[in-house]
This record gives sequence, structure tokens and C-alpha cells, in this order.
Amino acid sequence: MAATKQVNIAIIGAGGVGKCFISQLTSLASRRPNPKLALTYIATSKKALYSLDHTPLDLSSILLTLPSSTQSPLPLPQLAEHLVSSGTPTILVDNTSSQDLANSYPLFLKKGIHIVTPNKKAFSSSYTLWTDIFSAAAESGAKVYHESSCGAGLPIISTLHDLVDTGDEVTKIEGVFSGTMSFLFNSFSPVSGASSATWSAEVRRAKELGYTEPDPRDDLNGLDVARKLTILARIAGLPVESPTSFPVQSLIPKELESCSSGDEFLERLPEFDAQMEEVKAEAEREGKVVRFVGSIDVVKKEVKVGVEKFDRAHPIAQLKGSDNIISFYTKRYGTNPLIVQGAGAGGEVTAMGVTSDLLKVLREIA
Amino acid sequence: MAATKQVNIAIIGAGGVGKCFISQLTSLASRRPNPKLALTYIATSKKALYSLDHTPLDLSSILLTLPSSTQSPLPLPQLAEHLVSSGTPTILVDNTSSQDLANSYPLFLKKGIHIVTPNKKAFSSSYTLWTDIFSAAAESGAKVYHESSCGAGLPIISTLHDLVDTGDEVTKIEGVFSGTMSFLFNSFSPVSGASSATWSAEVRRAKELGYTEPDPRDDLNGLDVARKLTILARIAGLPVESPTSFPVQSLIPKELESCSSGDEFLERLPEFDAQMEEVKAEAEREGKVVRFVGSIDVVKKEVKVGVEKFDRAHPIAQLKGSDNIISFYTKRYGTNPLIVQGAGAGGEVTAMGVTSDLLKVLREIA
Repeated sequence: MAATKQVNIAIIGAGGVGKCFISQLTSLASRRPNPKLALTYIATSKKALYSLDHTPLDLSSILLTLPSSTQSPLPLPQLAEHLVSSGTPTILVDNTSSQDLANSYPLFLKKGIHIVTPNKKAFSSSYTLWTDIFSAAAESGAKVYHESSCGAGLPIISTLHDLVDTGDEVTKIEGVFSGTMSFLFNSFSPVSGASSATWSAEVRRAKELGYTEPDPRDDLNGLDVARKLTILARIAGLPVESPTSFPVQSLIPKELESCSSGDEFLERLPEFDAQMEEVKAEAEREGKVVRFVGSIDVVKKEVKVGVEKFDRAHPIAQLKGSDNIISFYTKRYGTNPLIVQGAGAGGEVTAMGVTSDLLKVLREIA
Repeated sequence: MAATKQVNIAIIGAGGVGKCFISQLTSLASRRPNPKLALTYIATSKKALYSLDHTPLDLSSILLTLPSSTQSPLPLPQLAEHLVSSGTPTILVDNTSSQDLANSYPLFLKKGIHIVTPNKKAFSSSYTLWTDIFSAAAESGAKVYHESSCGAGLPIISTLHDLVDTGDEVTKIEGVFSGTMSFLFNSFSPVSGASSATWSAEVRRAKELGYTEPDPRDDLNGLDVARKLTILARIAGLPVESPTSFPVQSLIPKELESCSSGDEFLERLPEFDAQMEEVKAEAEREGKVVRFVGSIDVVKKEVKVGVEKFDRAHPIAQLKGSDNIISFYTKRYGTNPLIVQGAGAGGEVTAMGVTSDLLKVLREIA
């Protein structure tokens, strides 16, 4: 057996996903003594904990000690310098959805700092940032993994990479990429055809059950799905410029875009129920249901996000709860796609994707 | 950029999967110049091509030159010595289903030779061989990956490892693990309830379409599924002794076990159609269909393989063609399992699993 090596971990973000990740990391570090995982930096937007000599922090109590810290987060360029100064291989775990931090990935990667993250913004903003990230990584040999940026812990990004890297031709990717939209449409337009709830009532119920963002418009505008599609399309080889550079159907009526709050939006949404009812009724007349899907036609180079009709027996129609489903159509797989399905949101499963990415980096560097 | 490194590749087996793998490797080597992939040894059961000084062979013409070779395969212990003598990192690609070769994995791994393979026998024979393989790998640091030993190129084994390694609790694994059985039962007991073909006619048709082994009993005895279940159960933490150490339902009537040929078996199979018809009719009376499934109850430590009834809306009932479907029930994923579905057999998709394992090893060693 080789001598015990050490790998330093720097974590930014301690929200829902961040907390679950810290718990998974604590358990991992106790189960696997080699390499030694040393938490040397942790920060939220306000607080930080670290020492200039990189003394490891106590992982198991970090969520209790961090809130009372008097240290502030280091500015990002300084953080990169600080992490590199340890001389020990370091993995930056970005559990935020910060665009600023995402913009700094090339800086960290160039210095050889590895990154694992569920942060969609890094990979779905400008195409320039995308190429900057991967060329910085190629240059230094630093690793960057982001499984949880699409479908949380589901093996979506790794599967697509395997298909592409082994030389398969991906022709189409299609699926339900949002747990919120899945929940809403599975209830509003069930395969049994028996729902009588109005669209606005479903949105209200989804919010009450915690399935939506505090302001449901942040789900209904389709941008979250568009970001995920941008990432997958780029891996499949399409140089998509941004998540707003292809057609994305927003489910926010034009008239309600200017509502000053989510509550006002919810109050006025019933005015537009008839529109959604008609969409559903049209599908029902064809024996179909409606679902909010994203699709990438790699051959035609077309990406789109919006409401579509599906036969009741279609796997997308059969989806349950708030599950995601993603179908990969490829030359090798032929007429029946490779399908991955399951919970695509939630702290534990999102953190799981981050933890498995971390394990991947450890296998590659330690 | 680091200087170009070299990794040597030794291939055993040039059948259906082997041929597809060689084609994928040829394409991969031309797309990715670093590390340089050098084929230094190739063998079938009869022929081999290699040189004592490890001069790389021409990959693109190897399938043409191998049949006319006058070299014989090296005995396995000698092969291990030979591969190690290059002083270059070496990956052994076992595209056979040879038990002998599987038994020698610990020998290769101890010497630091990495292994990627779809060979189920290595991981589903005695539990002693399983532990020998992984302790040899741990000792030397050699890598061993076998994604295609279950579900071909589908991300089954990697997903299960990710779940287990990140600390999730896998409670149950259930699915259709055989393309042949999938095809047979999807036709014999369709969700539409409209099939009138007898069981024996379906078996005959499946054989004619190339979905079964030359002797269909090699599929119908359930051993192939039992081997896959053994592998998954072991990864999930159950020390299953062998694929015959748990209940496996054979679909070969006792009276036909002694048939001297597959043809005689197929001729006499209609005598038993009434039995299968009754199994199907019983399911239909409950509004269900029958499928040949395997399941691992990790909590109760129970593994079993056989015919079971499923509601028509169940994802296992909805399966199409010869697809596999595998559901992972875990603590994190809750009531709705993580599901992977798609072609679980075929040369190209099986080879794809081997090629992606090879890429994994390259990322870890080069």
C-alpha cells in the first residue's frame, strides 16, 4: 500500500446542497482514510473559516462553528492564491449558484485547483466561459466535474460523455429536466385523464408543498431547463451560445411578467387558466397528455424547451411525482433510447452527484 | 501540456464484442493522440500476434492480419510476465467469456496490469475469486473495471458504485437483466394483452431473429441473469457465494433438460406450452403481465431470479423490444427508484462499456 496522501478540500456554499455535501464528506472521510481529506477552507457569502497555514478544520462540527466565525470570505483571486500556496492537491467544491464564482473557474483551474460543482451557471452562461473553463483545465491538467448541474445525482452528464467519448453518434436528447415542471404537469395532465384542478391551483399547491422556488416564476420561465439543455447540447458538440439563444417557452403570461411579487403573480394567475385548459384539452382530444420538455436535435442542431404532447404510453407521459427522465437517442442504441430516470432535485441526491465527482477526482489524482 | 505518454493495450478475444471494441479503439486512438495507445498483444483462443520487444501492432489492420498469424497465444502466467516486461503501463482487455482467463485476473492485477472487461465469469463465480481480484488490485494499485458485465454499455455498475461509495443505502435492486428474456416476455405477454402466439413459438421466433444463444436453453436456464445479479449484489455489500447459491427459476422443463440438442429441445417445447399459458392467464386475470426479472433485497439479503407478475403501468411491464431496465431503490431516492433503461446486449453497446472503462483507466493512470 502506498503511503497516505493528503488532498485539501475548499468548500463554498452551505445551503441545502452544501449542508448535505458536508454530511456526505464527513462520512466519506471517516470511511476512507486514504487519501486523507482535509477541509482547509469553507465560506458562505458572509462568513469563512480558514487559517493561513492551511490547518485542517474539524469537518464534523463545521456547520456549528462557521456561523460564529469572524473571518470573511477571501476575494476570489486571493482565494486561488491562498489555496495554491498549500502545495497540496486541492479540490474546490462550489455548492453555490453564483455567477461570480463560476466566472472565476478558469482562474482556479489554470492554477491546478480541481473543481466539482452542481453550479449550472459555470457551464450554461456564455460559450466563451465554457471554452475558457475547459481549456484552462486542459492546460494545467486540473479536473472539473459537474454531474449535478443536470438531473442532480442521476448519471446524465457522465453517460453523455461516455457516449460521445467512445465514438457513438448522439442524434437526439429529450426529456423532463425540471422536478418542478414534472410535478406540475404530472398532476395537471395525468395519464388517467382524471384531474380537475386548474393550472393556477396546481402551481399554488406545488409552491405550498415546497416544489417551486419562493417565486414560482423562477421555475415557470423555463430558464432552469434551458440551462441544463445548454450544458448537454455543448457536451454533444453543439456550440450553443447561451440559454437564451434558442426557443424557450415561458409559462409566465406576458401580462404577469411585471407583477411585483410571487404572491401577486399567484393571485392573478387564475385569469389565464382557460389558456392552459385549452392546451390540455387539445391534447386529450388526441388521447395525449402535455408535458414540459426540453429536446436537443443534434443532427438538425436545434434546441428547444416548452410544452409538448405525448401519447399516454410514452415514458415521458408515465413519469411520476417530481422525477426527471432523460432519453439519449444514439446510433448504437438504435430506435430504443438509453433512458435515465429518477429524482432530479433535492439536497441529498444533488450532493451525491458532487460527492461522486469528488471521488472521481480522487481516483484520478491520488 | 505534458509530454505524450504511452499506454500498452493487450486484447484477448476477437468475437462479436471484440471486433466492435477493436473498431472503437482504432477510432479512439486516432482522435486522442495523448496518451499514445499501443496495441502490443492480441490473441484469440487459437492465434496471437505480438513481439518480444513489444513493438506496437497496426490496429487498423489487425483483424485482417491476426487470422494468418503463426503465433500461438502465450500461456497466461507467461503472458503476465511478458506484459510486465515492457515497463510501460498496460491494460489487459478481456473480451472473452473464459473462466480460465477470469481465474487469472489476480495474477495480472498483482503485477500492476490493469483490466477492463465484459467477462461476467470473473465477478460472478466463487466469492473467493471476487475478493482475490479486488485485493490484488488494492495491493498493486492496478485498476479493474467491468461495466459491461451487467447491462452492456448501460451505466449500471458505475451508478451502483456511485450510490454505495457516496454513502447511500441501497435497499433493493430490481429489473429485467436479459435482452433475450425481455424480448420473449414482451412478445408473449404484451401490455396490450393481444398476443396469441404460444410460448414455444415465441422461443423459436426469438432464436430465428438471433435474440437467443445457439441453444436457447443457455438463456432459458436463468444462469446469465443470476450471474448479473451476483455481481450487483456483491457491489451492494452482500457476500453472495455464487450464481447458484440463491433461487433461480429455470424455464427449461425438467423433462427437457436432457435433450441432446437445442433443436430437439425446440421440437419438444410445445408439449409444455399449456404450463406457460396458465402462468400468463393467471396474470391476465389480475390485469397484469408476466416478466422474467431478477431482484436483490439488500435489507433482507435475498436474491432471486424468476417469472413475476407486474401491473401493466409498471415500468418493467412497459419495456420494449429486447431492452433491459434496472431500478435502484435507495434511501436517498425514496419511493421512486433511480432507473436505467435501454439495450443491454449487442456488440457495439457492450464494446462501448469496455471502451468507456478503458477511458476511465486512462484518466486514472495517464
